[in-house]
Amino acid sequence: MVEFDDLFRRQLHELFVWRRDVRRFRTDPLPDGTLEQLIDTACLSPSVGLSQPWRFVIVDDVARRRAVIDDFKACNADALNCYSGERAGRYATLKLSGLEQAPSHLAVFADKASDIGHGLGRATMPETIEYSVVAAITAMWLAARAEGIGLGWVSILNPDRIHAILDVPQSWKFIAYLCIGYPEAECDQPELEQAKWEYRRGADEFTLRR
Amino acid sequence: MVEFDDLFRRQLHELFVWRRDVRRFRTDPLPDGTLEQLIDTACLSPSVGLSQPWRFVIVDDVARRRAVIDDFKACNADALNCYSGERAGRYATLKLSGLEQAPSHLAVFADKASDIGHGLGRATMPETIEYSVVAAITAMWLAARAEGIGLGWVSILNPDRIHAILDVPQSWKFIAYLCIGYPEAECDQPELEQAKWEYRRGADEFTLRR
Repeated sequence: MVEFDDLFRRQLHELFVWRRDVRRFRTDPLPDGTLEQLIDTACLSPSVGLSQPWRFVIVDDVARRRAVIDDFKACNADALNCYSGERAGRYATLKLSGLEQAPSHLAVFADKASDIGHGLGRATMPETIEYSVVAAITAMWLAARAEGIGLGWVSILNPDRIHAILDVPQSWKFIAYLCIGYPEAECDQPELEQAKWEYRRGADEFTLRR
Repeated sequence: MVEFDDLFRRQLHELFVWRRDVRRFRTDPLPDGTLEQLIDTACLSPSVGLSQPWRFVIVDDVARRRAVIDDFKACNADALNCYSGERAGRYATLKLSGLEQAPSHLAVFADKASDIGHGLGRATMPETIEYSVVAAITAMWLAARAEGIGLGWVSILNPDRIHAILDVPQSWKFIAYLCIGYPEAECDQPELEQAKWEYRRGADEFTLRR
């Protein structure tokens, strides 16, 4: 049995504080095997009924990467059109992905059809399959930051289009497209907060008692 | 800027290894303020467009807790009926929640209607609101284990029923019901694996290249 001490807990807190959604990457590649190690760590995550529904797609093909970038640009242009006035102006200045610079691209899917786990725990809440994959991504994100590696989650994408570009099985649901690499700079404040898009609230605003 | 060393990374790996879905709790309460601190940590998590969609409901009312336990029992009986033969016999022996013993109950919801974050990042993938809440739960889970505190995620529940029992706003989507307290024992192997319900696969089974 493993116990943790105060020093570890303080450092773990710092890890939560300094984990960022990174959109500005250096282009130098990760050392060989690093991405695979991060995926190994993700697989230590909890999953509903031990279903292990995470499916990882390492995207290295230049044409596929280019198609993903094109899809991002199209979706981002559509998103900009949903804002007007000052908010639109502010949206236009935001950098919302590091797809062009990040040395590693990783798409993550949830296999909705796998029998692993024998359906346990998801009869009333089938969406726990997707949630298990998100838990795995979160673990990978923290492990990456502990190595000084940044991760950015791109969601401004068309899931059907990503599915087609990456040619994955029909039963896989697209969860996330991750940019991974060394960040240009480190920061403890979200980029959207720095850009005054939104500010962070305290936990008491989000807590009820019943 | 904060950097982490090899010792921290080794301990973080141990944290991932020893984080369990706990169903067997001691009944002694958490120290005052501990649950609130875990919620504070959860709020350091990433959220799509800084939407901070997590909504926490600390459930202390005895009648509400009893109603949740009754709902679990009904859903679990229904789930058992979906299995037959040896698999049904095995399901019947599993302990799938610590609702009766855990000193703290925490329900977690995603506010689908909040304007915080101004919709950024979720036009094509609105489900990233739910995913952000799952990331927060994952952080809380790890922080809890670092304190020697166990957390168990109960999903064998009827979301509509939980919504009614806890009387929360209509726009909140039920994500998770968490049992929190000190575990009876610590283990590095999932209980479902110990019970031979399912086994864990290596990451290479789940990784493609494109």
